[in-house]
Amino acid sequence: MPIVAIYPGSFDPATNGHRDVIARASEIFDSVIVAVGRNSSKTPLFSVEERVELLQEVCRSWENVTVTAFDGMLVDFARRHGARVIVKGLRAVSDFEYEFQMALANRHLAPDVETLFLMTSAEHLYLSSSIVKEIARLDGDLSDLVPDTIKHALQAKFAALPTDEPRSERLP
Amino acid sequence: MPIVAIYPGSFDPATNGHRDVIARASEIFDSVIVAVGRNSSKTPLFSVEERVELLQEVCRSWENVTVTAFDGMLVDFARRHGARVIVKGLRAVSDFEYEFQMALANRHLAPDVETLFLMTSAEHLYLSSSIVKEIARLDGDLSDLVPDTIKHALQAKFAALPTDEPRSERLP
Amino acid sequence: MPIVAIYPGSFDPATNGHRDVIARASEIFDSVIVAVGRNSSKTPLFSVEERVELLQEVCRSWENVTVTAFDGMLVDFARRHGARVIVKGLRAVSDFEYEFQMALANRHLAPDVETLFLMTSAEHLYLSSSIVKEIARLDGDLSDLVPDTIKHALQAKFAALPTDEPRSERLP
Amino acid sequence: MPIVAIYPGSFDPATNGHRDVIARASEIFDSVIVAVGRNSSKTPLFSVEERVELLQEVCRSWENVTVTAFDGMLVDFARRHGARVIVKGLRAVSDFEYEFQMALANRHLAPDVETLFLMTSAEHLYLSSSIVKEIARLDGDLSDLVPDTIKHALQAKFAALPTDEPRSERLP
Amino acid sequence: MPIVAIYPGSFDPATNGHRDVIARASEIFDSVIVAVGRNSSKTPLFSVEERVELLQEVCRSWENVTVTAFDGMLVDFARRHGARVIVKGLRAVSDFEYEFQMALANRHLAPDVETLFLMTSAEHLYLSSSIVKEIARLDGDLSDLVPDTIKHALQAKFAALPTDEPRSERLP
Amino acid sequence: MPIVAIYPGSFDPATNGHRDVIARASEIFDSVIVAVGRNSSKTPLFSVEERVELLQEVCRSWENVTVTAFDGMLVDFARRHGARVIVKGLRAVSDFEYEFQMALANRHLAPDVETLFLMTSAEHLYLSSSIVKEIARLDGDLSDLVPDTIKHALQAKFAALPTDEPRSERLP
Repeated sequence: MPIVAIYPGSFDPATNGHRDVIARASEIFDSVIVAVGRNSSKTPLFSVEERVELLQEVCRSWENVTVTAFDGMLVDFARRHGARVIVKGLRAVSDFEYEFQMALANRHLAPDVETLFLMTSAEHLYLSSSIVKEIARLDGDLSDLVPDTIKHALQAKFAALPTDEPRSERLP
Repeated sequence: MPIVAIYPGSFDPATNGHRDVIARASEIFDSVIVAVGRNSSKTPLFSVEERVELLQEVCRSWENVTVTAFDGMLVDFARRHGARVIVKGLRAVSDFEYEFQMALANRHLAPDVETLFLMTSAEHLYLSSSIVKEIARLDGDLSDLVPDTIKHALQAKFAALPTDEPRSERLP
Repeated sequence: MPIVAIYPGSFDPATNGHRDVIARASEIFDSVIVAVGRNSSKTPLFSVEERVELLQEVCRSWENVTVTAFDGMLVDFARRHGARVIVKGLRAVSDFEYEFQMALANRHLAPDVETLFLMTSAEHLYLSSSIVKEIARLDGDLSDLVPDTIKHALQAKFAALPTDEPRSERLP
Repeated sequence: MPIVAIYPGSFDPATNGHRDVIARASEIFDSVIVAVGRNSSKTPLFSVEERVELLQEVCRSWENVTVTAFDGMLVDFARRHGARVIVKGLRAVSDFEYEFQMALANRHLAPDVETLFLMTSAEHLYLSSSIVKEIARLDGDLSDLVPDTIKHALQAKFAALPTDEPRSERLP
Repeated sequence: MPIVAIYPGSFDPATNGHRDVIARASEIFDSVIVAVGRNSSKTPLFSVEERVELLQEVCRSWENVTVTAFDGMLVDFARRHGARVIVKGLRAVSDFEYEFQMALANRHLAPDVETLFLMTSAEHLYLSSSIVKEIARLDGDLSDLVPDTIKHALQAKFAALPTDEPRSERLP
Repeated sequence: MPIVAIYPGSFDPATNGHRDVIARASEIFDSVIVAVGRNSSKTPLFSVEERVELLQEVCRSWENVTVTAFDGMLVDFARRHGARVIVKGLRAVSDFEYEFQMALANRHLAPDVETLFLMTSAEHLYLSSSIVKEIARLDGDLSDLVPDTIKHALQAKFAALPTDEPRSERLP
């Protein structure tokens, strides 16, 4: 029986770390559904439609990868798509603890859907969507951090923001 | 000398994990005061009065447990109630670090009040008030997660919310 | 293309936690090879032949699971068996860190073999082969901790040990 | 070649833990620039001008320490000031993970700027700016937690706030 | 009903960190039994009889504290002594994970015995029996690290060792 | 005043991760003393003389780096060499906790000697002397893991071992 895997996330925006997880998952599983969460509690930089479109561009070369928006319960979404596997990338201990609790909660809700974890590549360990947004906001170098499509989208997005937008010192 | 223990928290709402900690604490200590924090920085789903009332219902069968709201300094509250012990439940490393810093800070402020930690039951490891609220918001199955009283309160609360309330994809 | 997964370990002896990982892996992958490490640096309680035999008994009901001894490099073993996936169970942060380093090292040595992680069931979180051996040594209750086959093997093994064998207080 | 070190942070307000890191850094490096982040995403209690002024008072006795506001990229700021070293204090594992990712990100952006970490003194382990603000808000004892200058500034700040300001129960 | 608490450990030798935990436990519980593990897997520096004697000396001033050797299952020992509580001190995340698994294992074996955790004082965070032995071996300053009784015992022990005893560089 | 930094370790053998820390430290500090611990509790693969010689070869190109054996207390060694700084590389949370306790212990013993931490490069995160020895033992590819000098020494060392030397399955 072919294995369908769901790779869920906010992807606001997708980084090279996300792309790396998708590439690996597409090697292992028969098909991979990248599931872009529609309703985040935080205000996203990119709308869910923009995020889906950008990821579709990024994933164009993998034939067994599709990108779609979703809302509601992840395990329900997985079942509707015949997916027995949820894939997550791990970077650090703090990820691990959060993901551990999510995996146990999802197993409680749907024992037939399994969460599998991939370790992020060492060179993507420091990457996160929020770090990438910070660097873009401060006109830092985005090479090696995001796919070109995303880089242009970030530059266009921040060029459109008012120039006196307060700029965070937080990082990097 | 009888030992009074304080079990402080937001309890927004109480979960089976909280109930489990209360049950164990009531076995060990002479009396247990469940202290519901009045003024949270975040907007709670249930008012402090609702949270106290729900917990009183949940704790009805334990004779040595009382439930009350509190504000101000926890160590002052403890002293006013003659409590030498603060009880906390631990689930994970991230809990541990935060609680560790709180325990050291409280010991600095009140060396005569001791913080004692209980390990959460394995089956409640993935439980938190925020996960429970997410599942309730998405109409997921709350059995085994919260006491029945809380379950009905959650369902009533979300039934009363406008149906186009944005729904978080975050979990689960 | 069918996916072959390797589940490596010492299994000295296998616990219900290991059995749980095997059961899940057998649901997801086309075939699972349980690979029992031949040469451990520590003196094992059971010989590698005993461990393989015990696991074969435990895994008898899963048609797509085989058990075999191995030595040498795990990634070489994986390639010889056409396995693209190494499966590991995670219990805790300390596991995570060690496994993280192993997964990165193995990826360096064999980029075509992917390590996937499963979260241990909450009820098996406290289980390890060494805890099980301690409990067996102290005549503690092994129910719910190991498969019956393993339980009998442990009891036979410790019955055969001299009665004045020093007994560890370490746990539990 | 003299070594200039940057010690960046929000310092809202500075604690005895921060002062301790500054004191040690001033012993090791030829000069230390305490860099107060101008634009935080969160609303600070003290303005950046107040924070700089308070820190200048606190650091008056160290001749090789200067205090200044900054915004933009930290690594750009470091380069403009000829600083090859960023100094950070570590308290706990959660600090460590965040700082680890920041250090790797900054190294990616500026390989010539090195991040060095100091361990916080044991007695400052529980200290953070937010804990200090909580204690000040609840009229708790600030002795041993912040320099006197900061203590008076905190008391003045909270005396000026409306008395019905909601008070957090969160800690301590 | 009076609460009896067991404080188990190797105590090879007891440090000021252990003494601190005993002092706090004796404040909270009606009686405290310090249980010195008889059969450690590692070769101890002090025999179990020496360790009991040293601890009895250290604990002489607390009337509700007794010291005794034990072997076998800790939960059986607890039950034989009518103890409903096991007390452990926590210093760090690695302690936490190990103790977490022990607490869950013991709860599985004896649901009526509860493990309670105390946080070590900040100034004892870096203390462990093995660090103390290293410092003693290298003739370092033991003040503030161990009770005087232990200090003299350590000095006598190392004075009696052959002078060409290999000395570890490991720490500190 | 010039800053002398000590970089202590077992270096059995040195890896590219160690070399990377030395390279960075030599950029920051006026001189760096690589201090090879003489008396390890474990049996080393290379004698301390071999380890010093190999490191001297590896460090030949840095003029301000010297390599020497040491035993006894690290802080005494630091003082004898006029070093105010101990440098350590950090890879992971488990490193962090251990190093945290060592740094606090050393500060207790010698408040005038400061421990500074560098983050390991992302690509060296999975590297350790023991992993390198495992790979060498199993004839795995050592490129990118150790300097060439070390690689040849490892190959010579294992070629000289009896061929029926038991081989660990542990990793990788």
